[in-house]
Amino acid sequence: MQQDFEQALQTAFREYAAFYKSRGFMRRLGYGSRPAIVNVDLAKAWTTKGSAFACDGMEVIIPATQKLIAAGRALGIPIVYTTCAYDIVEGPFADTGLWGKKIPLEHLKAGSPLCEIDERLERREDELLIVKKRASAFQGTDLAGYLTSLGVDTVILTGVTLSSCVRLSCEDGLWAGFRPIVVRECVGDRIAGAVEWNLFDIDAKFGDVEPLDGVLAYLGGLQAGAR
Amino acid sequence: MQQDFEQALQTAFREYAAFYKSRGFMRRLGYGSRPAIVNVDLAKAWTTKGSAFACDGMEVIIPATQKLIAAGRALGIPIVYTTCAYDIVEGPFADTGLWGKKIPLEHLKAGSPLCEIDERLERREDELLIVKKRASAFQGTDLAGYLTSLGVDTVILTGVTLSSCVRLSCEDGLWAGFRPIVVRECVGDRIAGAVEWNLFDIDAKFGDVEPLDGVLAYLGGLQAGAR
Amino acid sequence: MQQDFEQALQTAFREYAAFYKSRGFMRRLGYGSRPAIVNVDLAKAWTTKGSAFACDGMEVIIPATQKLIAAGRALGIPIVYTTCAYDIVEGPFADTGLWGKKIPLEHLKAGSPLCEIDERLERREDELLIVKKRASAFQGTDLAGYLTSLGVDTVILTGVTLSSCVRLSCEDGLWAGFRPIVVRECVGDRIAGAVEWNLFDIDAKFGDVEPLDGVLAYLGGLQAGAR
Amino acid sequence: MQQDFEQALQTAFREYAAFYKSRGFMRRLGYGSRPAIVNVDLAKAWTTKGSAFACDGMEVIIPATQKLIAAGRALGIPIVYTTCAYDIVEGPFADTGLWGKKIPLEHLKAGSPLCEIDERLERREDELLIVKKRASAFQGTDLAGYLTSLGVDTVILTGVTLSSCVRLSCEDGLWAGFRPIVVRECVGDRIAGAVEWNLFDIDAKFGDVEPLDGVLAYLGGLQAGAR
Repeated sequence: MQQDFEQALQTAFREYAAFYKSRGFMRRLGYGSRPAIVNVDLAKAWTTKGSAFACDGMEVIIPATQKLIAAGRALGIPIVYTTCAYDIVEGPFADTGLWGKKIPLEHLKAGSPLCEIDERLERREDELLIVKKRASAFQGTDLAGYLTSLGVDTVILTGVTLSSCVRLSCEDGLWAGFRPIVVRECVGDRIAGAVEWNLFDIDAKFGDVEPLDGVLAYLGGLQAGAR
Repeated sequence: MQQDFEQALQTAFREYAAFYKSRGFMRRLGYGSRPAIVNVDLAKAWTTKGSAFACDGMEVIIPATQKLIAAGRALGIPIVYTTCAYDIVEGPFADTGLWGKKIPLEHLKAGSPLCEIDERLERREDELLIVKKRASAFQGTDLAGYLTSLGVDTVILTGVTLSSCVRLSCEDGLWAGFRPIVVRECVGDRIAGAVEWNLFDIDAKFGDVEPLDGVLAYLGGLQAGAR
Repeated sequence: MQQDFEQALQTAFREYAAFYKSRGFMRRLGYGSRPAIVNVDLAKAWTTKGSAFACDGMEVIIPATQKLIAAGRALGIPIVYTTCAYDIVEGPFADTGLWGKKIPLEHLKAGSPLCEIDERLERREDELLIVKKRASAFQGTDLAGYLTSLGVDTVILTGVTLSSCVRLSCEDGLWAGFRPIVVRECVGDRIAGAVEWNLFDIDAKFGDVEPLDGVLAYLGGLQAGAR
Repeated sequence: MQQDFEQALQTAFREYAAFYKSRGFMRRLGYGSRPAIVNVDLAKAWTTKGSAFACDGMEVIIPATQKLIAAGRALGIPIVYTTCAYDIVEGPFADTGLWGKKIPLEHLKAGSPLCEIDERLERREDELLIVKKRASAFQGTDLAGYLTSLGVDTVILTGVTLSSCVRLSCEDGLWAGFRPIVVRECVGDRIAGAVEWNLFDIDAKFGDVEPLDGVLAYLGGLQAGAR
């Protein structure tokens, strides 16, 4: 993103934010006391250069998410990962469905390495992997019921893309009754603008966008095993 | 089921049916024009003797379902199979969840042969397999959206158990906007009574229970490839 | 229900229960620590004699539910009521939908007194009323998200009919991550058998059926306002 | 929105669109053959100046939507309206829930004129009004099942806000199996940028953004009553 455009966006966001606040929007949800971490689509299709789904910024996103996950593991909170995979990618009965007519889901055939979680996150066996066919981590999956049964009240979100799977996971997490926290350094997209304006929309209406330091401080203040 | 008990149930059902009809229940939904077949949990955990989930009547259910599937393939309609499988079956983060505290889901570990569709149905690669964690084929899955995108208006149901996964798939199929047809010879359960009273409840309120011959005649009347 | 039939059912249930337990079913979910009460369809269509939807046993169900609600109010836990109502009951665009082709939903026109909660329960303004179009309290409504956002982990169910709206609310409550408790004296149906066999199916696989005394003792052991 | 910013955005969108197309995104879903019109939140809270929820552009949106609805009525296709309303807007049991902690839902008390559909649309009695508590027309409602039961395959969307309720209705409509068409002249928001970047995100990944003329031409090509 060129610097001029970036500045123009930031100017617009400042003006819009003032307007939204005057209307009573952009309030803080705040943190609850029983968080979970949900890492959205940090699989190779999105984290690897050259893929149709490849996103920018992995040099920041991956280390930031590693720190977050380490903090979560130290606390013993639920940590979940999502990926997308499709069993039938061609023919009349493809489960890529209508979405596959809009974006190139044919690359995400189940079994492809592209659908695997990025090894740098070192997912553990007792950290749930959700294989989904829609954008949201909560749709067409049992994630909401799973987190509710674990007593979770706060969903800390990382991953890509912000304009699609992360944004929808934030929104659906909110309707599902959880406080969604989107970690600024842990999310990204394919185009720079999409990061900026989706963070703006999210923070205005659907979840709290917070810096990694703040989220780590919050987690550090919770007692391990207190759940 | 002892003969006396069976007769007592049938007597009761006749009386109840007359009562329901006088109240305006037990109407016929009827068939639509664009059917799909959904085979619920005809996987080895349910079709094989000795498993905790084993059901009775496979000597009737499997051949009847084979006939139904053959008719569906001849027409080129969507054919779907479901199974249950869980990735984490022990520890605090098990995805068997609360249901696993009620029934022995720990046997259904993903990767176990028990979770595989019975080979006698000879599932084809372009026939969607839905791996679910709840009872209903429609919950925590994208089945409703898949069938809607294919223009389906009628869901023909087979499988087990009638008192759990088939009944709930029928009910959820109805809310999802499809006409559910439960094929009498293609469904079963672990206890004889559960077949009888769940068929009664379904036919009274949630879907049409029809004999295999009737369903085959309906399918025979549709034009192959007309969809 | 004639006494002979009732005895035959009870004999069958005893045998079936032994079988289920030997297979690892019929476990206890147990209570959580943050309950809510959900009163399903205790509206006049179901509680008033002469309606097409009228259920038996209100002389037991209403007083028992009154006691339960009083205990819940003393604790300050969430109390929810559901009813069914439809805005368009005839013509091609009726929102009674396919279900209305199976059962007589045309009686449940929005605005009809039949859709109002029975006055004997004295619903208060801050006790949520959910107007639904499907059987389950959780489908096509925001009940799961509402209860999750309130930190609820246990759903105590009352109401009618057991074979339809209560059973499905129990099942969907389980998938939504709550421990469903069905209160024996607070539920009913239109036909006696449907009470018996649906209680059996529920207790075997989807929720704990508990006597009112037990539920009141559980609530009595919780601290008011502890939530 | 200042002209410079508008131009900077358009330049960015052109560049981004070229990039997306090179990756295989931004395909056309196209129209199906059985459309419905879903008018999202064209209620007074959003269409009336001075409300906290008021949106810009009603001088274009309302007449354009009137034309669309007239075309839909001439064809006899399903026409649906949504609004938001909450029964309990204060206290611990408010059904404004967590979303009400983020945005000023306390203004949308059920019964308020703000929750009523704008009279200029002259909603008819057999045109379904869906009262929802979440952003999406499809969540916590029975809209997907309703439209599926009517055989709908295409959902034409109008209304506000584009960044919230319209975008989510488009996305959820897609997962529900419908082809979402967002009508350019019939949608708006509170801030100009939100219109532009959400239209971009939608057209890139979730639905087809089409001009009113094109949609009217499509509807004009369908045969009245053909459904």
